This record gives sequence, structure tokens and C-alpha cells, in this order.
Amino acid sequence: MTFQPLHFDGLSRTGRLTTAHGVIDTPMFMPVGTQATVKGLTPDQLRSIGTQILLGNTYHLTLRPGDELIAELGGLHKFMNWSGPILTDSGGFQVFSLAEVRKITDAGASFKSHIDGRLLDLTPEKAVHIQENLGSDIAMVLDECPPGKATPEVLRGAVRRTLLWAERCRKAHSRADQLLFAIVQGGTDLALRGECARELVDLDFPGYALGGFSVGEGPEAMHTALEPCATLLPTEKPRYLMGVGRPQDLLAGVAAGIDLFDCVMPTRNGRNAVAFTNDGPIRLRNACHRRDPAPVESDCLCETCRNYSRAYLHHLFAAEEMLGPILLSLHNLAFYLRLMADSRQAIARGQFRDFRAECVARWDRRSPAE
Amino acid sequence: MTFQPLHFDGLSRTGRLTTAHGVIDTPMFMPVGTQATVKGLTPDQLRSIGTQILLGNTYHLTLRPGDELIAELGGLHKFMNWSGPILTDSGGFQVFSLAEVRKITDAGASFKSHIDGRLLDLTPEKAVHIQENLGSDIAMVLDECPPGKATPEVLRGAVRRTLLWAERCRKAHSRADQLLFAIVQGGTDLALRGECARELVDLDFPGYALGGFSVGEGPEAMHTALEPCATLLPTEKPRYLMGVGRPQDLLAGVAAGIDLFDCVMPTRNGRNAVAFTNDGPIRLRNACHRRDPAPVESDCLCETCRNYSRAYLHHLFAAEEMLGPILLSLHNLAFYLRLMADSRQAIARGQFRDFRAECVARWDRRSPAE
Repeated sequence: MTFQPLHFDGLSRTGRLTTAHGVIDTPMFMPVGTQATVKGLTPDQLRSIGTQILLGNTYHLTLRPGDELIAELGGLHKFMNWSGPILTDSGGFQVFSLAEVRKITDAGASFKSHIDGRLLDLTPEKAVHIQENLGSDIAMVLDECPPGKATPEVLRGAVRRTLLWAERCRKAHSRADQLLFAIVQGGTDLALRGECARELVDLDFPGYALGGFSVGEGPEAMHTALEPCATLLPTEKPRYLMGVGRPQDLLAGVAAGIDLFDCVMPTRNGRNAVAFTNDGPIRLRNACHRRDPAPVESDCLCETCRNYSRAYLHHLFAAEEMLGPILLSLHNLAFYLRLMADSRQAIARGQFRDFRAECVARWDRRSPAE
Repeated sequence: MTFQPLHFDGLSRTGRLTTAHGVIDTPMFMPVGTQATVKGLTPDQLRSIGTQILLGNTYHLTLRPGDELIAELGGLHKFMNWSGPILTDSGGFQVFSLAEVRKITDAGASFKSHIDGRLLDLTPEKAVHIQENLGSDIAMVLDECPPGKATPEVLRGAVRRTLLWAERCRKAHSRADQLLFAIVQGGTDLALRGECARELVDLDFPGYALGGFSVGEGPEAMHTALEPCATLLPTEKPRYLMGVGRPQDLLAGVAAGIDLFDCVMPTRNGRNAVAFTNDGPIRLRNACHRRDPAPVESDCLCETCRNYSRAYLHHLFAAEEMLGPILLSLHNLAFYLRLMADSRQAIARGQFRDFRAECVARWDRRSPAE
């Protein structure tokens, strides 16, 4: 059995997701390793904070160093020295957001590489082939992710194409050691989401993702849409909310029954000297931290909080030393992973609703970091 | 006993240097942690490759974050989470090389900070006071380090002032848990070096450094001068060759009876994608490494060589990922530390001369990386 739900608490649930490279406790956050590395961190450091699964970006990896090269060198796990599970996206999202799209038809997308301007194309079959070359444990279907402010017509077109492509991805997919997840699009149009979900569920994928929320219409609209969207998906299959988000968004996702998350926010904020804490985000560049002997969080067990003061981190960022981004990326990921571990525990005890309310109340005392 | 020579092999020797934060096996290389961090590496990573002592730069630390602040936070060891020995320089070398020197008299040097243009001064007493604030295990006297092409008159003046300042540093020094080392100047004028050494030896410092060679007249002149210069110093005291250098320079130093070394070359070259190997330096950015599944060095036990291919490192540098500089700095330091460990073993076996000749012959097959 690929996914086994363990405890339910309202719509929230804990579970175990089994992949070729290991088991994942859900709900779980996946640190983002876009270019075959989580920026600045070694696999040992990632393991030390409880990382169970990484995300790799198909678009970046196929452009550089190339999926054929990675396959030749034994696959992405070996290439980046990560022996645990890896999920790869389909590359579609980055083609639409980073590359210059030249043409998009039912056949696929043509685009110009943001690295060297090469003209390339991505089809459903190619997205699957690349991910099979990478050898990830979980691959994603190619989808069309329309902008957050898309017209109903554009949204509908994206759903039609996403369904078409999902079916072609399924047919093209051949690796027995890789799970292929489908993606539900439809923006905040619940009828459209429902239509998309129903058709995908009929195709019986081993897991389902909700796409389009990271480019969506803001946190409130998302929080409202999450519950009805998640309920469209089968209880016995894992659910993945793509590219989202802030700690409060993760808890909204868990409340709605989501199992997997990814976001660049912990590492990106870490590189920019912003730390996530139980009392909300803090900016280590601020002068108030210059002489502060306290750790970022006194009850955090990560390497950063066990060994370094805010004063030291303030100094590292002032001196533009690499160790600043390294230590703070590590802490922020530890914070996200702990949030998921605490959520799992709260669900198991039937107290997730209270847990979420307490967290959000504490964070809301401060303004958000973004 | 602070320093205990263990084995002799010609002029080379092994020994044990005891400090307040631990014992150092000599000959030993000290990774440079200029701004209270060895660029990109955690203390755990440094320990994993056998680092026994770090170097900190007084000039940088007094400008930012300030030695008073570091003292208030419990000293440099605690600030940077390094529990082993630390040596700090006096700041003089950086004042002459990085800052804009406004005036230099027997009293001290006035200079403009390279960070914010503040006007500051450094006197022998201040150099000692700062290092006592930092709490390093080994402090260095303030010296005047003249440029490599200095006239005999300038060299002589620098030696006179270095002696004057050494005596004042000694008087100002008060920490019983900190060793104060003197510095011999005099360029490649052996008579002048001898004069300087004799006067310093009369003052009976617990250790002696040879200064001025890192700005000297090139490796040949240095290799020739090292032996007569080292022999000027007492056998029973540790000898430190400041700021030098390439692997072949370290071996020339060990041959002459030097015990301690420091240099930014392993970390700086690592950040620039140049790796030290037993077959000479290699440039990981070169296209020939693009598909190479081999590690940087197949017989190296560092984290980098145990886990990653040259192809992966090539990719990290091409993608400008932080992990490239991190992993290659780690390997290069491991290479330097292994070179010292192998030297100690060769000395203990009475085979250092052969060991050095074999190393240099292997490296000479390739052109140097600088």
C-alpha cells in the first residue's frame, strides 16, 4: 500500500507514504532542492533536522546539467548524495514562470531557456521521460498552470489541457519504482476544480496535487478554497499542495486534509536574514540583535539554535559571510519540519484545531516577514 | 610544558603544543577564520577533517563586530562555537595591507577602516588588549611587516620597530591562559633576521613566528631563507610561518623545522572551483569534468570525496550554487590537513625527505593553480 492514513482529526490526517527510497510521515514539508542542492545545505544537515523527502525541479535540471547526464551518473539520488525520497515537479510551472514561452498548444509548450536562450519544448511525454531519467520517487504530470488572475475562459482551457496531458503522462509513464501524481487545476472556481478532480480520480493516480494556489488570489481565498478542494480527492490517496507557503498556509492545508507541502520560503527567507520563530518572523539584520546572546529560538533543537547567538548571526549577515545564510536556512527548515511534526502529534491526539489556533495567534502578534 | 618536540628527522620535527583549549599536533595547518567563521564551513565540518586550531583576524574582528562585544558575549570561542584552540594575529599585517595607513610612528599606526572609513589606531598595547578580549589561545605581537621589495633601510627600520613593539606587547600582556608569540622580521636579509631573532629570543617568548614571507620575493627565495631563519629560533619553542602558502611551501617549511602554518589558499581556491589533489591542482569549472563520475581524489576521506563526483561539483559551480564553494573548501582544507598528518608520520619514520620529494615531483607534473 502506497499511502496509509493513520489518524484522523476533523479533515486533518496523519499517514505514511511509502516510496522506493523510504517512508514519509505525513503531513510533511519538502525542502526545495531546485538545482540538485538545497541551497547551502549538505544532506547530513538536512537529515539532522528531520528532512524525509526533497523536491527537485525538472525544468532547471533538464536545462543544467541535463537529465540524460544525471541518468548516466546513476540518477538524481546518487548525483546529489540524497538517499531518501525525492519528488520532482513536471517543469511546467517553471516554463510558465521563468522561461519565455513561445507557443503553447495541446501538443506541449515551446520555450526559450532562461539560461542560454536555447529553444526547447516540453510535452507530457517528455516531462515523464525526463523525470524517469532523474529517477525521482514521485513524479508529477505536466499541467498548465494559468496566472492567478486568469479569466474563466483561460482557466477552463487550462483544465481541459491539464486533463488531456495527465492522461498522456499516465500512458507514457513506465517506471514501476516511481509514483506519478496528477494535478488538479481550476483556480478558485470550485465547480471547475471539481470537474478536474473527478476526471483525474477516474484515472486512478496514486496521488493528487492541488496546483495553482501559489500564484493564486491571496491567502484568504486560498484558505477558503482548500477544504472543498481537498475533499474532492480520495481519502486513501496522498494530497500535495504545490508551492505553498507561509507557516499559517501550511496549517490551513493540514486542516483541510493536505499531506505534502513544498515552498522556497524557509530557505529564501533564511538567505535574506529572516528567521521563522514561534513568536513570528524576526529580521537578524536589525540592530536590536547586535548584542543579543539568545539563540534564534530557545526551544529549537537545530544546530543553529543549539550553538549560535542572534548576535553571531547578525554579525555573519553584516559581514556577508556564507555561514549566515547556511545557518538560517537550516533553522527555517527545522522550523517548518517541526511545525509538521507538531501537527502530526496534535492530530494523533485529536487536538489539531487548538494547536493551529495557538500557533496562528502567536504569529499574528507580529507582522509577516514577506 | 607548552611545547614538546617528539621526533626529529633532519631539521623537521613533530611535536605537541599545549594550549588552554587543547593540544595541537605539529606540524599543523590552521584554517583561516577571518571574520569569526571559516568561510562556508561549520565547526562540525572543520572537526570532521581533523582541524585542531583555527586562526582569527584581529583587524577584522575589532572593526566588526568589535572585540568588546565578543568579550561581552563570552569570547571568540563561544561566539563562533569553536571549542578548540584559536590563534589570533595582531592586526598589523591587515592594517598595512587592507586599511589606508595614515601615519606610522614608534607609538603605533593610524589607519582608516576599510569598512566605514573610521579613523582608528593600533598600538602594541591595543593589539594585546584586543586579543585578550577575543580570548584566543595564542596571541601575536604587533609587528611592522614591510613590503617584499623594501629597501635595506626600510627593512632595518621595520625590525627596530618590531623589536620595540614586541617588548611593549610583552609588558602589556596579562592573560595567563594565552600564549604570546613574537614575530621575526628582516625580509631575506639573513643578518637582519638573525639580529631580530636573537633579541626576541632573549625576551623568552613561548613561541616565535617568521613574518614577511607571504609578501616576500617569491617561493625560491623563501625556500632558501627558511632553513637559516628557522635555525635562529630555539628548538624547544614552536615556530610559526605566517600566511604561507602553497602545499610545496608548507613542505619546505616543515623541512626547515616549522611547526605551524596558515593560509587562505585552500578556502579561496575552493571558492574559485580549484581543488588541490595529490596530482596537482584541478579546475572543476573545466568542461572535462562535466561527465566525470570520479571524486576529486579517490583516496581522500573527506565528506566531499566520499560522497560527490567531479561532475556534481562542476554542476554546482556552473549553477553558482553555494554548495560548490562549501564542498571544495572542505576538501582543500582536508588536503592541507592530510599533508600535515602525512608529514608528521613521515618525520616519525625518518622518511620526510623522501616524502617531500615524492609529493613535489607529483605536483610538478601539473602547472600551479594560482
